[in-house]
Amino acid sequence: MEGIYHCPANYVPLSPISFLERAATVYGDKVSIVYGSNVRFSWKDTFDRCVKVASALVQLKICPGDIVVALAPNVPALYELHFGVPMAGAVISALNTRLDASTLALALEQLEAKLIFVDYQFTDAVLKALDLLSQKKVNPPHLVVIPECDKSSSMDHKHIASDLDYNCLLEMGRDDFRIIRPNNECDPISVNYTSGSTGKPKGVIYSHRAAYLNSLAEIFRFDMRQMPVFLWTVDMFRCNGWCLTWAMAAIGGTNICLRNVSAEIIFDAVSLHKVTHFCGPPAILNTIANAPARAISSQSPFPCGVNVVVAGSLPNSEILTKVEGLGFNVYHGYGMTEALGPATMRPWKSESDSTFEIEQEEIRRREGLHNLLLEGVDVKDPKTMESVPNDGKTIGEVMFRGNILMSGYLKSTEITQETLKGGWFHTGDLGVRHPNGYLQMKDRAKDIIISGGEAISTLEVEAVLLSHPKVSEAAVVGQPDALLNEVPCAFVKLKEGFGASAEEIIEFCDDQLPDLMIPRTIVFGELPVNFSGKVQKFAMREMVNANTSLANC
Amino acid sequence: MEGIYHCPANYVPLSPISFLERAATVYGDKVSIVYGSNVRFSWKDTFDRCVKVASALVQLKICPGDIVVALAPNVPALYELHFGVPMAGAVISALNTRLDASTLALALEQLEAKLIFVDYQFTDAVLKALDLLSQKKVNPPHLVVIPECDKSSSMDHKHIASDLDYNCLLEMGRDDFRIIRPNNECDPISVNYTSGSTGKPKGVIYSHRAAYLNSLAEIFRFDMRQMPVFLWTVDMFRCNGWCLTWAMAAIGGTNICLRNVSAEIIFDAVSLHKVTHFCGPPAILNTIANAPARAISSQSPFPCGVNVVVAGSLPNSEILTKVEGLGFNVYHGYGMTEALGPATMRPWKSESDSTFEIEQEEIRRREGLHNLLLEGVDVKDPKTMESVPNDGKTIGEVMFRGNILMSGYLKSTEITQETLKGGWFHTGDLGVRHPNGYLQMKDRAKDIIISGGEAISTLEVEAVLLSHPKVSEAAVVGQPDALLNEVPCAFVKLKEGFGASAEEIIEFCDDQLPDLMIPRTIVFGELPVNFSGKVQKFAMREMVNANTSLANC
Repeated sequence: MEGIYHCPANYVPLSPISFLERAATVYGDKVSIVYGSNVRFSWKDTFDRCVKVASALVQLKICPGDIVVALAPNVPALYELHFGVPMAGAVISALNTRLDASTLALALEQLEAKLIFVDYQFTDAVLKALDLLSQKKVNPPHLVVIPECDKSSSMDHKHIASDLDYNCLLEMGRDDFRIIRPNNECDPISVNYTSGSTGKPKGVIYSHRAAYLNSLAEIFRFDMRQMPVFLWTVDMFRCNGWCLTWAMAAIGGTNICLRNVSAEIIFDAVSLHKVTHFCGPPAILNTIANAPARAISSQSPFPCGVNVVVAGSLPNSEILTKVEGLGFNVYHGYGMTEALGPATMRPWKSESDSTFEIEQEEIRRREGLHNLLLEGVDVKDPKTMESVPNDGKTIGEVMFRGNILMSGYLKSTEITQETLKGGWFHTGDLGVRHPNGYLQMKDRAKDIIISGGEAISTLEVEAVLLSHPKVSEAAVVGQPDALLNEVPCAFVKLKEGFGASAEEIIEFCDDQLPDLMIPRTIVFGELPVNFSGKVQKFAMREMVNANTSLANC
Repeated sequence: MEGIYHCPANYVPLSPISFLERAATVYGDKVSIVYGSNVRFSWKDTFDRCVKVASALVQLKICPGDIVVALAPNVPALYELHFGVPMAGAVISALNTRLDASTLALALEQLEAKLIFVDYQFTDAVLKALDLLSQKKVNPPHLVVIPECDKSSSMDHKHIASDLDYNCLLEMGRDDFRIIRPNNECDPISVNYTSGSTGKPKGVIYSHRAAYLNSLAEIFRFDMRQMPVFLWTVDMFRCNGWCLTWAMAAIGGTNICLRNVSAEIIFDAVSLHKVTHFCGPPAILNTIANAPARAISSQSPFPCGVNVVVAGSLPNSEILTKVEGLGFNVYHGYGMTEALGPATMRPWKSESDSTFEIEQEEIRRREGLHNLLLEGVDVKDPKTMESVPNDGKTIGEVMFRGNILMSGYLKSTEITQETLKGGWFHTGDLGVRHPNGYLQMKDRAKDIIISGGEAISTLEVEAVLLSHPKVSEAAVVGQPDALLNEVPCAFVKLKEGFGASAEEIIEFCDDQLPDLMIPRTIVFGELPVNFSGKVQKFAMREMVNANTSLANC
């Protein structure tokens, strides 16, 4: 069409860097970060500090496309690195602070990390990892230690020998540094490791475009208006804090940073800072529900309500009711690292929510509908790529498509192409679609049990086990069976101070499940989890397979 | 970076079409459109109808990139065309219903329109325009008449001979039509004519990308959550209803369509449909403030508040106070067709708002800060492209940059390049920047008066004139002066039933303005306006220049 002319005036590659630039002007004097009792920054401060980080990184010879690693809890420095690193043209990879030295060494090697920022509490694992790299003749990254920035903190200010600490790096930075923006909005901004319920973490690459658009999508999902107060209970190393690191700059929110999460810290922060939103894994709801009386704020139930979004299976209704009674509104999403965090939502005011409590309860446990900015969510037969009927019964693979998905797996082009084949991202999760379009998860593809020719959702068996008044945690895997191919085997952790027999648990299931779904074996004890607390079903399967005569124990 | 793989699974060209596709699933059974007492559609209905429109257009040989024109008030069909036309790969141009036949003919010729949809009330002008085109041997577009769809309407159901009416076109459409999406997100979606305060309307091209991003930006600006109820008081032919046509699908809003705007209609709709938002030119505030007592709803002041966004200079405080007292929250933006609607905003809870009423009043009249998703707003010296100091005094040209700007002027590549030169969109408006970053408009570049070497903002003189208790409307232009080069000349319309002398008005100004800014001449009467109600200062200047001896009259 004659007259069209795209140029820097009307086409700017999408990047979360823009959010911070705007925040420095529009929300300049508003509080950006609160940490401990002493640390407060304004958006103008945060902008200035991030510019200095970027400037210092360039002085340290970090080049566009280089990967800079961070290993820290949700302290202000980790927040700043989410902008400072991309503003140097580099890519941030925030790693799980619970990684052991050897996994850390593997990640650093795969990332070809040039520089690693380490919070002073996590230097031991990093030093060991650097040793391992040296033994392998791999060039170790430069080390920058992040000291405690809250001067009033009673934490042990342990120091280690390092090239540089974060404060010196900030001092090196020039405030007239010219921000390096991506030439192409599809250039990478971050690499996030999947927490690996399969035991094999993969580096998931996010683009500036996806990060920008997903930040906006999260604002909608969280029902946020301008200048929310966000409590950092979700780890920033998980999908860059579900992209809320960047989203907070977009809407001038206040980031309540913290080093640890506990019921006391949550209640105190809500009372003191008027927190409007926080999020995390479903375990956070247990933390709230089981809060000791002294932790519960006198202001609870909070009159304005606090929105809590959790991603993963919801805990039992008893816990939900308790949490809601304390003044928290619980929302539930479903997503994964490859989708930059939660990708589905339940519309807040579904008409069907007002009918029956039982129906409500069932509906709230469904994973809902696709979030704004995601192009498609479907349940498909992965062989034919046909959608399953919306009958609430036919199981297929859950698939996504859209701009708020990963660019690929680092150094794994083949796996990337396989995962994105046919124009859809294959989640590996099985689900059904209800007549109203709602998605409901059934299981991980590799976790489903095929028994007597029927597919059994382990999630459904687990839901029944979790409704038992004495059960605290439960996970189900298939146990080899000569006749039926597989039968369910349950790993169960009882609530503290409770005892139960396998027979009692099996009888309880008998009342609520079809025969094929009733666990034949109950194994009591701690469930095997990985470094990030995810139940590792592959490890459970190994145990079951190694001991085919596994009896109730 | 190895592993990056962009494909249809994780890269989809941004287009508002996605909003409707998602709305059909996520908000399928929610009300999309209300019109009159009989017409109600759900989002599923709206999706189906738009698919049929697209299908019929393809059957009518409309090809990707073709322009389809619409001339209609804010009826459901015009809303549907905002999706149906782009879903056929075509470009929508909604024209001002107040255009006369010859301007209409010029626009149709420039657009090379293949098809025109015309509301039954506006067929006369179109038939005349088509005649004019025939006389010029220009191929006239096909005509599709939009009949009244509210069967209970008492409107005159005038019919004209046309190839097709809108209902027949819908019947032609197939519901299994495969939506044509843009190959490139920078492809055009619409052409909007500037309403032309300069007297020369230009066709402004919007891309799918800009429309998509600006829809999201408007949701933020309007402080909207999911499923708002939006009253269509802004014309859809203005920047595609400030992109709210598309935004409503993004968040599952209810569109209250209407044929005319009056105080009674506004109050009735707010009471009946629980309207949450509406917007338009500042005149809408006068309409509300001057509502006859019988029009004012018994529910007013509305307990939840209704958000009203106006773009343009705010009316006087008396009117604002009255409107706010009736339960409306007034927000004020500044923008233009080239910026897809309002481009600046005032943050809602500015700390300075709570200080003094006078300061509040002054601050509310500033144009504020740049909206989310706009990359930059600046006041620059257009020669050096340097920013003016943030001193609230130094005048420069207001400039924007970012993705929510036009792609260019139709068939005017040179003017486009001139307007977008140096990486910024030159608005042609003059303004200053305050120490807190707030932008304040001073005047159109071509309207400013240079008197005795000083720049005089006509807007500031007009603000004083409008504060006179007898003045209803006022506009100021420069009048040639041998000594001072130019002096201010004011055109004034008095309130009905009031009389005033020029001396009285001049004396009033004398108390509040420096000598140079006091109008030397007052011309009483109607102000010259264009077809869309905008004051035409160029016409006033012509009058003044033609009559150099113009005295107070």
